Amino acid sequence: MPRKRKVKLTHLARDGSPRMVNVGSKPVTRRRAVAEACVTVGRAIASRLRREGGLAKGDVLVTARLAAISAAKQTATLIPMCHPIAIDGIEVEAVVEGPRVRLTVEVSAEARTGVEMEAMVAAAVGALTVYDMVKSAGKGVEVGPVRLLAKEGGKSGRWTRAGDGYAAR
Amino acid sequence: MPRKRKVKLTHLARDGSPRMVNVGSKPVTRRRAVAEACVTVGRAIASRLRREGGLAKGDVLVTARLAAISAAKQTATLIPMCHPIAIDGIEVEAVVEGPRVRLTVEVSAEARTGVEMEAMVAAAVGALTVYDMVKSAGKGVEVGPVRLLAKEGGKSGRWTRAGDGYAAR
Amino acid sequence: MPRKRKVKLTHLARDGSPRMVNVGSKPVTRRRAVAEACVTVGRAIASRLRREGGLAKGDVLVTARLAAISAAKQTATLIPMCHPIAIDGIEVEAVVEGPRVRLTVEVSAEARTGVEMEAMVAAAVGALTVYDMVKSAGKGVEVGPVRLLAKEGGKSGRWTRAGDGYAAR
Amino acid sequence: MPRKRKVKLTHLARDGSPRMVNVGSKPVTRRRAVAEACVTVGRAIASRLRREGGLAKGDVLVTARLAAISAAKQTATLIPMCHPIAIDGIEVEAVVEGPRVRLTVEVSAEARTGVEMEAMVAAAVGALTVYDMVKSAGKGVEVGPVRLLAKEGGKSGRWTRAGDGYAAR
Amino acid sequence: MPRKRKVKLTHLARDGSPRMVNVGSKPVTRRRAVAEACVTVGRAIASRLRREGGLAKGDVLVTARLAAISAAKQTATLIPMCHPIAIDGIEVEAVVEGPRVRLTVEVSAEARTGVEMEAMVAAAVGALTVYDMVKSAGKGVEVGPVRLLAKEGGKSGRWTRAGDGYAAR
Amino acid sequence: MPRKRKVKLTHLARDGSPRMVNVGSKPVTRRRAVAEACVTVGRAIASRLRREGGLAKGDVLVTARLAAISAAKQTATLIPMCHPIAIDGIEVEAVVEGPRVRLTVEVSAEARTGVEMEAMVAAAVGALTVYDMVKSAGKGVEVGPVRLLAKEGGKSGRWTRAGDGYAAR
Repeated sequence: MPRKRKVKLTHLARDGSPRMVNVGSKPVTRRRAVAEACVTVGRAIASRLRREGGLAKGDVLVTARLAAISAAKQTATLIPMCHPIAIDGIEVEAVVEGPRVRLTVEVSAEARTGVEMEAMVAAAVGALTVYDMVKSAGKGVEVGPVRLLAKEGGKSGRWTRAGDGYAAR
Repeated sequence: MPRKRKVKLTHLARDGSPRMVNVGSKPVTRRRAVAEACVTVGRAIASRLRREGGLAKGDVLVTARLAAISAAKQTATLIPMCHPIAIDGIEVEAVVEGPRVRLTVEVSAEARTGVEMEAMVAAAVGALTVYDMVKSAGKGVEVGPVRLLAKEGGKSGRWTRAGDGYAAR
Repeated sequence: MPRKRKVKLTHLARDGSPRMVNVGSKPVTRRRAVAEACVTVGRAIASRLRREGGLAKGDVLVTARLAAISAAKQTATLIPMCHPIAIDGIEVEAVVEGPRVRLTVEVSAEARTGVEMEAMVAAAVGALTVYDMVKSAGKGVEVGPVRLLAKEGGKSGRWTRAGDGYAAR
Repeated sequence: MPRKRKVKLTHLARDGSPRMVNVGSKPVTRRRAVAEACVTVGRAIASRLRREGGLAKGDVLVTARLAAISAAKQTATLIPMCHPIAIDGIEVEAVVEGPRVRLTVEVSAEARTGVEMEAMVAAAVGALTVYDMVKSAGKGVEVGPVRLLAKEGGKSGRWTRAGDGYAAR
Repeated sequence: MPRKRKVKLTHLARDGSPRMVNVGSKPVTRRRAVAEACVTVGRAIASRLRREGGLAKGDVLVTARLAAISAAKQTATLIPMCHPIAIDGIEVEAVVEGPRVRLTVEVSAEARTGVEMEAMVAAAVGALTVYDMVKSAGKGVEVGPVRLLAKEGGKSGRWTRAGDGYAAR
Repeated sequence: MPRKRKVKLTHLARDGSPRMVNVGSKPVTRRRAVAEACVTVGRAIASRLRREGGLAKGDVLVTARLAAISAAKQTATLIPMCHPIAIDGIEVEAVVEGPRVRLTVEVSAEARTGVEMEAMVAAAVGALTVYDMVKSAGKGVEVGPVRLLAKEGGKSGRWTRAGDGYAAR
């Protein structure tokens, strides 16, 4: 069945066991990845966060952004098959939109492998930090989706999530 | 407005800046939290993962479970306002359900503060690990929702997510 | 010479080599320590930081405060002879005073050993973070002094730095 | 006022929030930074440390040097806006001078960004380690100043602290 | 076959997958574990290390001891199923015996689970550090055995390795 | 005596104190190292592990392999004088041979210094993880030897352990 060939999982060795894929033969190219994570906090909490963001700088959002930056640098420690990467830059945007907080993270590096996981981990940890800071007001708050919006660099080149109105910056 | 009082965020000091809340005056009680995280991998990848899970032990799922356990122990490093907690136990279940992988994490401890974040972080990192291992077959795969299912212990006592058919174990 | 007996260093074993002192026979008591660290940034940078702090929340200072909180939790990893401690609370204050930024950190825990190093490390790393964020504007900026202001708990009881007008909170 | 333009802080995004500056467009150059940190331990403790240093190797000083080396490698974890850097070498000198211990740290790397923070963090943590090991004999001991002595590499080139008699090695 | 029942592995859940065993129902008791690790460096290197150890303090051995202490505190990060434990004390002895370096590590804590792994990890990392420092002089040097010498505390009580002439301290 | 010159230890500075050797002047070359670590578990446990390995995937062995991969990435944190290295690939094989489990780890990178320690640390931590998971069934189980089998790259070029029948892959 051709579909089976399609879903080849490169993190599994031939005998089915996990391994950290050898990227030594890949060229070093400029990599970029953008991911986002949402936290559905509800309107009451969103209004509280927005108010902070209006009068001041919004410490919940600043805390989440810093947690995201730190987490990006911990990616290879957290995700077993990730390679350590010398990240060149991390930008995190955190906005309150209706009942949700949306974190968007862009990571860039020159590397033999992509920085998708760095962006995904950063966005997710940023969102979990928002959850942590608002959970006393709403344990039921949900985190997600966490998803890749765009990537550039490497053999597979540029990829942008379809149908989301996401325009690469 | 009474709603404002409701959404008091305990991680912010009176001057609006973040702090790690002092839990020193809270009693040590038995704490338990259960969280889940889903990864919508699509039917082709799910079928591949299920096949592994049928014939063997499912290395993607085992890898995700181990990543979840390790991440739970890194919670206080990742989430700025989390207290270091001496976790007593971590159980992670990973199942393939239709087009999704669902990780359910239960964390327990005797502590002055809850272990909700430990369970949330573990579930999220487990799900991100699944994403990492299948992303070569589907960059568009989404992680989420990550959410608390239940908690026990502490002043606020037992809480179970409503309307989800989740029965505390 | 009696003075020699006075400066007995408890982190050295009888044969002169370092060890992590066994605190197992000490009682668990409530511990508190306050430390401060200054960064002499000069008037131009101080004015820039103060302006941020006036109109908004002061992101350099918020970043420094969060870095201090995270560092406190890394103390046992950074300082070879420090015991891992389940910290109960961390509060960090960051103010601009004349040409200086002053970080004051209070750490509390119930433990067999003190939390002086947690407070000292947090204050120092907070100050280094300020340095990092202003160094493009002034490489010559100096960090220090980093010093203990007060401690409570344990056999030696309460101690407050003399002659500094520091009043225990 | 022209001075305001001078104190532009590169770690803040245009909207005033922190970010990890993208260094991707900077060339890789050889970088070197030297920082120092002092600990004013007083004459009694200094004499004890000097005696160790005379008859043997001085375990307090060796411990401080090793803590400094380890800390340099943790810089990107401790300082939120620091880039992970593949450090090429770290040398730490620790000497007792009058009533003080002075740690001097030199860090080198080939990188797109400087290693000032690696040297500053290493020196500070080395000094805090000295504090930790002597604090039973003197809680009032002060750490500081921690300061950059010299740097080389990158667009801004060589810089040496003025007026200190410090000669680049 | 009764032997099969004997080799029940408590770190595997009923379905055969790994988990961090819940120790919440075990009492907190005083725990102690002693482990050792050897490095067979050969006579030439041993003589060099012994000479250092005679005239001075032996920096290779001090470095190994400090690495062992730090590693003990990283045990729960390194060994997937290990619980985070608030270690009370760590002592490391490093001696040169004939062609070998022997590290002996004693770890103690009050905990619900044993500290065997903390002692084993510390001894192993100390020995690997010796290997690292002498490998330029002998890549073929071997590390091992790493083994438990004694343990105390918990349900299974005191255990001492038989037939080795090891006397509990 | 010429032998003394032979056992020059490059991790010690001229004054006998440890340092992280400056590798900045070495060329970047492709590096590879293979190490192995054994755990003598005895026949009863080996049979239990082999059975798992026959019917399923052997969760003890998978856990050990993942712990090895994670540990390789922690090498510069664990071993004081090790340089942080951007590892390109890690493969771990775990087999049950008679009464022993043998882990073989291959690490590769393009770097100024070798990856021997990454392979050694990974193999050792993998073996310690096996010990952790079987110790309830056999506290007396021994870990070792941990040893380098082969290395490539750098000035000293290719090296293969003699007399072991080890053939470089």
